[in-house]
Amino acid sequence: MPTDKGLFITLEGCEGSGKSTQLKLLEEYFKSHNITAVFTREPGGTPLAEKIRTIILDGKNSEMTDECEALLYAASRVQHLEEKIIPSLNEGKWVICDRYIDSSFAYQSYARGLGFEFVEKVNSYAIKRGMPDLTIFFDISPDEAFSRKGGADKGDRIEQSGMEFHKKVYSGYTALCEKYPDRIKKIDAKRSVEEIFADVVKEIKRAEERLKCL
Amino acid sequence: MPTDKGLFITLEGCEGSGKSTQLKLLEEYFKSHNITAVFTREPGGTPLAEKIRTIILDGKNSEMTDECEALLYAASRVQHLEEKIIPSLNEGKWVICDRYIDSSFAYQSYARGLGFEFVEKVNSYAIKRGMPDLTIFFDISPDEAFSRKGGADKGDRIEQSGMEFHKKVYSGYTALCEKYPDRIKKIDAKRSVEEIFADVVKEIKRAEERLKCL
Repeated sequence: MPTDKGLFITLEGCEGSGKSTQLKLLEEYFKSHNITAVFTREPGGTPLAEKIRTIILDGKNSEMTDECEALLYAASRVQHLEEKIIPSLNEGKWVICDRYIDSSFAYQSYARGLGFEFVEKVNSYAIKRGMPDLTIFFDISPDEAFSRKGGADKGDRIEQSGMEFHKKVYSGYTALCEKYPDRIKKIDAKRSVEEIFADVVKEIKRAEERLKCL
Repeated sequence: MPTDKGLFITLEGCEGSGKSTQLKLLEEYFKSHNITAVFTREPGGTPLAEKIRTIILDGKNSEMTDECEALLYAASRVQHLEEKIIPSLNEGKWVICDRYIDSSFAYQSYARGLGFEFVEKVNSYAIKRGMPDLTIFFDISPDEAFSRKGGADKGDRIEQSGMEFHKKVYSGYTALCEKYPDRIKKIDAKRSVEEIFADVVKEIKRAEERLKCL
């Protein structure tokens, strides 16, 4: 690392891609390696951002426009960033975040069809002040992921958006991996938990080495 | 009007500038002139936008960052615009909105110090699709307005921002009147309710004439 700042790592993938399982393994890994890491999630991560999360995900808010959704994600992100992520990194802690700005690109720019420019605009603060050092994309198609998790969560507005939508999200992620090959690392998430985790650790070590040299 | 679309009028001013009183008079005026008008407010105006309003104004959310606040206002605005304002205007109804985008410029760009560019960016959708035909600014300084209303509302996060903040809001509005002289009309709000209302009606008639000629 060029300074004493912690490493900022985000995990991305379609619903049911196995992020939560890998997050638990990472928690144990960091503990055993004496790395102080903050585990957090988006949307949410602070009490206020969690209130915004409730509005975003509530299945009852089906009238939400795509632009409103993108702005609410950006609002919760900026609160999370200022209140928790940046201060933690500045204290030298690592921050591991379950979903971050690439979710907005995959879900809002690509799948909702809002395009890159609008999502970049409303996230300009995060783009300027809080881009991840490493993003891991858990690569599994929504067909396979939903069948593995036993279908979409009925109370979750995003999960309820239909298979066509989730296929677009997946294509969005694939395009993002091509657009940001240095930052986003794709890991085959159809394999065993152990195999996937070995690759996660490998990518984190690589990112750490790369950032040391900067 | 160039088409059969309704007129979009917004009312702006510091807290306690007398907007609510004038809104009531306008409601009666439109009824007596057989003009179908939708009276609405920001933040809020639809059930979902009102949920966002609750988060914005709740005095308990004192940790809210300025950027988060600006994004939440923009989120509630875009929902309000798509779900209520644009459809109403397209049906030929007039829309009278208590606060709108100039509040974001006065409160967030000027008073919070976020600048014009950020607020324009996060409101790009409203700027492109929903600028008012006429904005009336009720001109009264925060000193006079607060003393008239008997102080700030204790449960309202914005009203509780302190006199220095509200003075900046007022300066912001003054700058906006100079920046958009064709759209924003300043009315001296220190006079009697009847005198102010006479000017409001005069400005609405002028705007109607002006838009007929476009």
